[in-house]
Amino acid sequence: MREVAIIGIGQTKVDEHWDKSLRDLAGEAALAALADSGVHQVEAVYVGNMMSGSANRQQHLGAYIADWIGMRGAEAHHAEAACSSGAASFRSAVMAVSSGSVNSALAVGVEKMTDSPLSEITNSLATAADAEWEAGQGLSFVSLNALLMQRYMHEYGWQKEHFAPFCINAHANALHNPYARFHEKVDTERYLRSAMVNDPINLMDASPIGDGAAAVIVVPLEHAPIVNGHNPVLVAASSAATDSLAVHHRKDPLFLKAAYASSKKAYQQAGVTPADIDLFELHDAFSIMAALSLEANGFAERGQAPRLAIEGEIQLGGRIPIATRGGLKARGHPVGATGVYQIVEVVQQLRGEAAGTQVEGARVGMSQNIGGSGSNIITHIFKKI
Amino acid sequence: MREVAIIGIGQTKVDEHWDKSLRDLAGEAALAALADSGVHQVEAVYVGNMMSGSANRQQHLGAYIADWIGMRGAEAHHAEAACSSGAASFRSAVMAVSSGSVNSALAVGVEKMTDSPLSEITNSLATAADAEWEAGQGLSFVSLNALLMQRYMHEYGWQKEHFAPFCINAHANALHNPYARFHEKVDTERYLRSAMVNDPINLMDASPIGDGAAAVIVVPLEHAPIVNGHNPVLVAASSAATDSLAVHHRKDPLFLKAAYASSKKAYQQAGVTPADIDLFELHDAFSIMAALSLEANGFAERGQAPRLAIEGEIQLGGRIPIATRGGLKARGHPVGATGVYQIVEVVQQLRGEAAGTQVEGARVGMSQNIGGSGSNIITHIFKKI
Repeated sequence: MREVAIIGIGQTKVDEHWDKSLRDLAGEAALAALADSGVHQVEAVYVGNMMSGSANRQQHLGAYIADWIGMRGAEAHHAEAACSSGAASFRSAVMAVSSGSVNSALAVGVEKMTDSPLSEITNSLATAADAEWEAGQGLSFVSLNALLMQRYMHEYGWQKEHFAPFCINAHANALHNPYARFHEKVDTERYLRSAMVNDPINLMDASPIGDGAAAVIVVPLEHAPIVNGHNPVLVAASSAATDSLAVHHRKDPLFLKAAYASSKKAYQQAGVTPADIDLFELHDAFSIMAALSLEANGFAERGQAPRLAIEGEIQLGGRIPIATRGGLKARGHPVGATGVYQIVEVVQQLRGEAAGTQVEGARVGMSQNIGGSGSNIITHIFKKI
Repeated sequence: MREVAIIGIGQTKVDEHWDKSLRDLAGEAALAALADSGVHQVEAVYVGNMMSGSANRQQHLGAYIADWIGMRGAEAHHAEAACSSGAASFRSAVMAVSSGSVNSALAVGVEKMTDSPLSEITNSLATAADAEWEAGQGLSFVSLNALLMQRYMHEYGWQKEHFAPFCINAHANALHNPYARFHEKVDTERYLRSAMVNDPINLMDASPIGDGAAAVIVVPLEHAPIVNGHNPVLVAASSAATDSLAVHHRKDPLFLKAAYASSKKAYQQAGVTPADIDLFELHDAFSIMAALSLEANGFAERGQAPRLAIEGEIQLGGRIPIATRGGLKARGHPVGATGVYQIVEVVQQLRGEAAGTQVEGARVGMSQNIGGSGSNIITHIFKKI
């Protein structure tokens, strides 16, 4: 198994891009990553996307994007795992290169969500849940997460305001990220008085949809060049695990078993423990998901993630900085692209390019992308070389 | 790069399965493959599917199917490359095992097309073409293939009746395949008087949609057991290449450049030439696609595939038997499942289990799955051990 490294990254701003198509966005991120890598040609293209078949009436994104960016002929396909599609495309690229099948690969995550009516987007997002056993009962993603948050508050005695630091931290970090959707400071008061979506989840607990694309170039470590003065970043671990789609099928819905399994494997592969992770780009689609992730991955005891947040340990300079470029909450969550954004942001940190929110001396970074309500969880650990 | 072998296969009949859901079908094929392999647990599940997001309002099929078949926890995602989604899922499984990431993987292709109105299915199929440059002009998949066939007949002087042998051969072989959608003998007269769909493509030139699933289990060759008396089958080559989605972007629309590129790499990997291939499960979605495939892959000169067919060389006992279990035309074409059906059928041939249409002494078999109008072409070569 060959070791794999990232040598190029690219991204678009997350926004409502009325003037750009899905193809334009993916192309912008992919060409930026190619330029950043110094590579002119890749042998494989893997596209992470969740809903282009319904929202944009375009499937077959592998060949579609490969051609658009001048890679006609390259091997290509589209990887989908709901909101973890981005990381699935990256993992496909890692396996393709580590297997020796190809010597270079592009993973590009893209989602164009603002072309369709919101009802269509809500329905498309619900296809990540179990259509017969959840969506068919009228459950949306927000309501599933609201049930989890409700139960968590009941079990552990936390109040609504205790979740404010997740949102405040994400928005504070996004102020320095030009690619983030929001550049607005949020305080506890604003958190508490924002509109309720599905009790107890209000607008400030929920990540926004958006249009965006992010891309990375991977090659075998042994061939990885130093480009523009920056070293390649090592993919020290790549690991995935699943759980039931339907939340009610889990014995313990407040424990993200797939996160635990996937990070456990990842820690082993990379030879690290949670204490070695300098920053963690987690899947804060909702505040409750950030809390559950911190616990399942070994950064907080069961029921204690809000305490970690309240004590400032999730901020820059804290024990485990999260959402360092804004996270899903403030950078935005163009679903199939998110997993690749997370990886791009970890690479920025390990290169020392995270202007404004640089984690000083960062050497080991982790990203974790979650599909469904904890159903498909893909973890990557990266090391500075 | 570890060598990979197939140790289990499973499939459902291709049909209108009104009594079975997408989940039921995938489960039936996957559990059959597991039983056939003697393996109880796999580490990864890759699902090939094209249109469940729009046709069945269910995405996230990796975790969804993994849980349903008792593999909750396994790594899983969904691979999509339009009609070549099945082979893309198989190729993902091969790369996962050959990279050393996992020691066992299931690839299952599934499509449930008869739950939705036909207009929805036609629209979903069109998402494999370029939405802006083809589908947006009103071109469907049948009409794109009709344009290709029209041009081919014009260039090379063939008449409609010269394409009859493709359909007749497929239907003759399907008579012996219990999993095939159709068990009806077709002769030249019936071919010629069948209903016109889009001149010159009539009903007998076009493969039918359907519901179905097929599955295979892959493991490293070095660990591959002999199960139920049959040897593992070696994956001697796995290769993919793309072309533009839009046919009008190709200099020479009658040459499947991606088929040429992908089989060229596959022949090199397997150390064979077209003359060594004992049978070829090709992508006969339309008669013209069968003809163009035979030419691009080196089995016939440009413009001469109909002659090969007329001379009986595509039948059992001929130079290159194709569609030996009915092909897309008569076994049926549940789009995202087709690529895995083709692989299952090659394995049947190499095991000597193709009752009624066994290619005597078959040692090397090839499958080729095509997405779009020749836009994504995935080739596999298998060897008897």
